[in-house]
Amino acid sequence: MLNEIQLEFLRTRLDFWDRLSEPEKADLSRATVATRFKKGVSLRSDDSECLGALLVHEGELRVFIQADDGREVTLYRLGPGEMCVLSASCVLNSITFDVLIDATRDSEVFRIQIAAFSDLMKRNVWVENAAYKNAVERFSDVMWAIEQILFMRFDKRLAVFLLDESLKSGSGEIRATHDEIARYVGSAREVVSRMLKSFEADGLVALSRGAVRVLDRERLKKLL
Amino acid sequence: MLNEIQLEFLRTRLDFWDRLSEPEKADLSRATVATRFKKGVSLRSDDSECLGALLVHEGELRVFIQADDGREVTLYRLGPGEMCVLSASCVLNSITFDVLIDATRDSEVFRIQIAAFSDLMKRNVWVENAAYKNAVERFSDVMWAIEQILFMRFDKRLAVFLLDESLKSGSGEIRATHDEIARYVGSAREVVSRMLKSFEADGLVALSRGAVRVLDRERLKKLL
Repeated sequence: MLNEIQLEFLRTRLDFWDRLSEPEKADLSRATVATRFKKGVSLRSDDSECLGALLVHEGELRVFIQADDGREVTLYRLGPGEMCVLSASCVLNSITFDVLIDATRDSEVFRIQIAAFSDLMKRNVWVENAAYKNAVERFSDVMWAIEQILFMRFDKRLAVFLLDESLKSGSGEIRATHDEIARYVGSAREVVSRMLKSFEADGLVALSRGAVRVLDRERLKKLL
Repeated sequence: MLNEIQLEFLRTRLDFWDRLSEPEKADLSRATVATRFKKGVSLRSDDSECLGALLVHEGELRVFIQADDGREVTLYRLGPGEMCVLSASCVLNSITFDVLIDATRDSEVFRIQIAAFSDLMKRNVWVENAAYKNAVERFSDVMWAIEQILFMRFDKRLAVFLLDESLKSGSGEIRATHDEIARYVGSAREVVSRMLKSFEADGLVALSRGAVRVLDRERLKKLL
């Protein structure tokens, strides 16, 4: 069960909340559980069923796909207030692919359990509508990621990543290993290390153990 | 205006038809136009607006993205009875990317004009629902294509394409240039030519001008 503050967050972040009947609101609240995930942990369901719909309360989740050989491609990330229904794909018949999800920061996630979510979708067309609309938004995120990976030159992609992340961190420093960066930009660690060293030689960044500091945003932007 | 046979096709292929009121059915029928496209032609709207929702009556459409340098990635193909709402992305707020569409065979396409489609989506939640559901189905197609391109070894991808297409053609012969094949499998013509020649040397296929004939399905399958 969620506490009152958590419930308020749930109510304000679900666009279909106002379309629910009182019993539906009660069912949804009862079926939602808050779970904490440590940074780096992957979110899996206990059984063979899927996780259910997720709403990030605090922290950040990463949604990705993985090849048999372990290579990963990050599709998008979810921050506080953002919802993910791809983790409820077992009840969305139009979704025939699976994604993996892990926590990129210590996170608290509200999970609408799959049975209740499925039931609500069947009872209320607005819930189904919101679920599909959410999936389509993610589709747009994925297309953006894919176009970057397929079409954008690698130095450009890495520059975009460094500029975005250094802005987010505020300090200009990105705390991530080359391996982690490779996963975010859909490349191999060796390729990332080589390009970062070339950026360092050009005075664009400074490298240290587990961190990259952006030194010259303006020149990095010129790569875009 | 569609003729009676065309209207019957429209009625049976739109899953939301039965959810429309009589005036909505009339509006939809009036706003739908049938257009023929020659093989190879690209579908573009006359003005800056988007095309509208498409329903393939005859033939085949290909939906793809294109890099600045001209490289293309085929996302999926649509046959008779299949619908595409990505071409109506200007009224689907959750879709923030654009796709290109061309006819891969001589085709007849029913186009629900964008103003009427947008209007119907606002008036009837079932139309909106069907549109998003359709987009999510395409999302699944795209993920399949992307996973192939990013993760699957190229010889495997080409083998999958040859097996699929030779089954479709019935004769075991695929009428396509290396350039066309490259576009379907998301690669470059040179790479396709090289791999086809290697397949030919192994006795898997026979090459002739503008065509590939599959000689040994069983051994081609072993590549998968």
